[in-house]
Amino acid sequence: MNSNFSRDNLKTIIDSSSNLSINQIRRMLNNMSAPEIAHALESSPPEQRNLLFSLLKTEEEGDVLFELGEEIQQDLVSNISNEELAEAVKEMELDEIVDILQNLPLERMENILANMSNVDRKRIEMGLTFPDDTAGGLLNTDVISVRPDNSIKEVISYLREQGDLPENTDKIFVVNNDNEYLGEILISQIITSDPMIIVREIMETSVFPLDVALEDNEVATIFERNDLISSPVIDNNGKLIGRITIDDVVDVIREDADQNLLGMAGVAEDTFAPPGRAAKSRVFWLSMNLITAFIAASTINIFKDALDQIVYLAVLMPIVASMGGVAATQTLTIVLRGLTLEQINMSNIKWLFKRELAVSILNGIVLSVLVGLITYIWLNELTLAILIAFALVINLISSVLAGILVPLILRKINQDPAIGGSVIVTTVTDVIGFLSFLGLATIYLI
Amino acid sequence: MNSNFSRDNLKTIIDSSSNLSINQIRRMLNNMSAPEIAHALESSPPEQRNLLFSLLKTEEEGDVLFELGEEIQQDLVSNISNEELAEAVKEMELDEIVDILQNLPLERMENILANMSNVDRKRIEMGLTFPDDTAGGLLNTDVISVRPDNSIKEVISYLREQGDLPENTDKIFVVNNDNEYLGEILISQIITSDPMIIVREIMETSVFPLDVALEDNEVATIFERNDLISSPVIDNNGKLIGRITIDDVVDVIREDADQNLLGMAGVAEDTFAPPGRAAKSRVFWLSMNLITAFIAASTINIFKDALDQIVYLAVLMPIVASMGGVAATQTLTIVLRGLTLEQINMSNIKWLFKRELAVSILNGIVLSVLVGLITYIWLNELTLAILIAFALVINLISSVLAGILVPLILRKINQDPAIGGSVIVTTVTDVIGFLSFLGLATIYLI
Repeated sequence: MNSNFSRDNLKTIIDSSSNLSINQIRRMLNNMSAPEIAHALESSPPEQRNLLFSLLKTEEEGDVLFELGEEIQQDLVSNISNEELAEAVKEMELDEIVDILQNLPLERMENILANMSNVDRKRIEMGLTFPDDTAGGLLNTDVISVRPDNSIKEVISYLREQGDLPENTDKIFVVNNDNEYLGEILISQIITSDPMIIVREIMETSVFPLDVALEDNEVATIFERNDLISSPVIDNNGKLIGRITIDDVVDVIREDADQNLLGMAGVAEDTFAPPGRAAKSRVFWLSMNLITAFIAASTINIFKDALDQIVYLAVLMPIVASMGGVAATQTLTIVLRGLTLEQINMSNIKWLFKRELAVSILNGIVLSVLVGLITYIWLNELTLAILIAFALVINLISSVLAGILVPLILRKINQDPAIGGSVIVTTVTDVIGFLSFLGLATIYLI
Repeated sequence: MNSNFSRDNLKTIIDSSSNLSINQIRRMLNNMSAPEIAHALESSPPEQRNLLFSLLKTEEEGDVLFELGEEIQQDLVSNISNEELAEAVKEMELDEIVDILQNLPLERMENILANMSNVDRKRIEMGLTFPDDTAGGLLNTDVISVRPDNSIKEVISYLREQGDLPENTDKIFVVNNDNEYLGEILISQIITSDPMIIVREIMETSVFPLDVALEDNEVATIFERNDLISSPVIDNNGKLIGRITIDDVVDVIREDADQNLLGMAGVAEDTFAPPGRAAKSRVFWLSMNLITAFIAASTINIFKDALDQIVYLAVLMPIVASMGGVAATQTLTIVLRGLTLEQINMSNIKWLFKRELAVSILNGIVLSVLVGLITYIWLNELTLAILIAFALVINLISSVLAGILVPLILRKINQDPAIGGSVIVTTVTDVIGFLSFLGLATIYLI
């Protein structure tokens, strides 16, 4: 693959495919890798996307489908026939086929499996039994394994017989006669070792294989912490059933990051989703926010009399609420990041809580002096200026509680703390902001 | 590395290192990989972190320092002597040494370089000339290169002479006598090829090497799009100067995702930063928000008379503002994600804009009916209920403009659109929310 050249192609195709002839586009697609074509599809509105996909060769469709996000993948798959799909996935790796087939309606999936060879079908049916977000969902069965009593010379001639090794083969695995995992040897070690040496003598046995049920983000962490290219996967009985490679792990890392970012804002859709689907994905958190906004409004309603007497209260109250919201989102983000990276636990959460409290007091003092000064200069009302300063300190301190407790509680009740956490957190700071400011005003001004 | 065992260690050390004896902790650290130790340090408050670091062997310190975030790295480096640091980095890869040295005060850096061998110093000085966030900042010089007229047999005996190959060596590079890059061969291909074949005949020449000045996120994209393990890097003259490996690219991907998430909330600090530093990192966007909150307040101030006459306006106005803020953040997030993934460009931005408009109208109708109904049921004021519904539609439509234009403008003026974008965007929706609701009320109710 010629990266520079195909990158240019990619730009051209995304920017102006409407101005190109069908043949020009087809030629360009031929020069692009599957992930690049997938990127072009994800960067295209639905209509153009369908056109581009229809120009692909059947044997390329499978690889491209695998690289796509779930939503776009399902859209495109629903437009092609069972025969074409079976043809398209024929040459793919197990985890990739499974990734595509598992989203199909049961009947379609069975129809496609029925048209495959016995060996392929059994392999895929095994793959389909693993949950998508576990090591099992990422594994390929294209492992090369040798016996501990083989010599390096025997290993090399065995590898020569294989011809091309599977992609990203940095190591081969050592198993016993029952296919139980014993150890591994790097390809680079095979090439540099004395051919007479026996596998047992140089195999690495200190690396633990991945359990098939391990969660995919745990797999990603193990790859990162140990700089792995590939890792063996074993079943409950210690038998080698496949391997996971770094390219699939990189996809897991990207998707996790993507979900964190989107989750915070309460969206879950691809960039060029059609309007109806996008509206549906967002309306839930908008509705939640509507409820919480009415909760905040009914807090204000308690202080109708105060607002009736001093109109400046209405003018100033959103300031206290909004500052608390920003501070709470900052704390929330730090906690979410710490939870995602598994940095936060029972022993350091107290330290974190005290630190956040100290931060809110430090920034609270600076900002409340500022807010008081600006208010006094603007409206020339000393008591009001002092009250808003105090209310701000109260709200910034409560923002710490919200920013730390909300994600921890969400996680405790098995909800993703990244999703919608900010709507809940800002409700708390809105309510406490209005309560503290209007409450103080009622006590000292009315 | 025994991942399961050291993962347990990691948990124990993070959860309860205060209850363990120094010797117990030291034993555990000995069983952990550098990234795992780094994770333990990043999960520890400053005091405990310094203790853990002080227990490391000098030869491990370098690898651990490299794995740490910049801030923690600098803290720890400032506590160790020049001699210890020089010793710690001695065995490291070029990109790793450079990563640590480039953050040192000039005098310290020169002192350490002066104590190195001539060869090491020159190599590191070259590394230091590349900006941190380019291919040059990621490259290692541990490349293995051969000539096109070598036979595979010669290549294999050359590799055997080398003994252990550098980590993540999946391919070696082919260069001419001037060290200009010509092509590459996979290690797995060397092992499976006929030893009599000449390198020229089987080398891959269609892969473009990375330019040393390429930005690091472009490097990550190329690795992802082509499922690479390693890639050659060339200078302006086409000479091979090093290679980049996937483990460093994974770090780039993680850091980019981290910055996107943190940037949205206007924080930039590690999870366990001391209070003073954390407060400083957050006060800027809090202050920005203070300014924008006063802008919103002065918008409200325009409608003092209306608020004076109808107190319910004050009760309801935050609802319109808050709904617009959530909708704008949703649009902003989709645009930011699209920009980060390079999915958005001049030709599809129009489609995206129309889609967002359609979404805001669809959700606007649903939500404004809801908001109107709730208001009418709650306060029994028909006109007010109709007005807030209309104001909400106006604000949701304007949230689309803000959510799309703000990040595009920020990027146009070379600012990171992820940082602080949400503060600006919610200011727009606050102001327009107050303007539309209070404005409509002034026209129809006063």
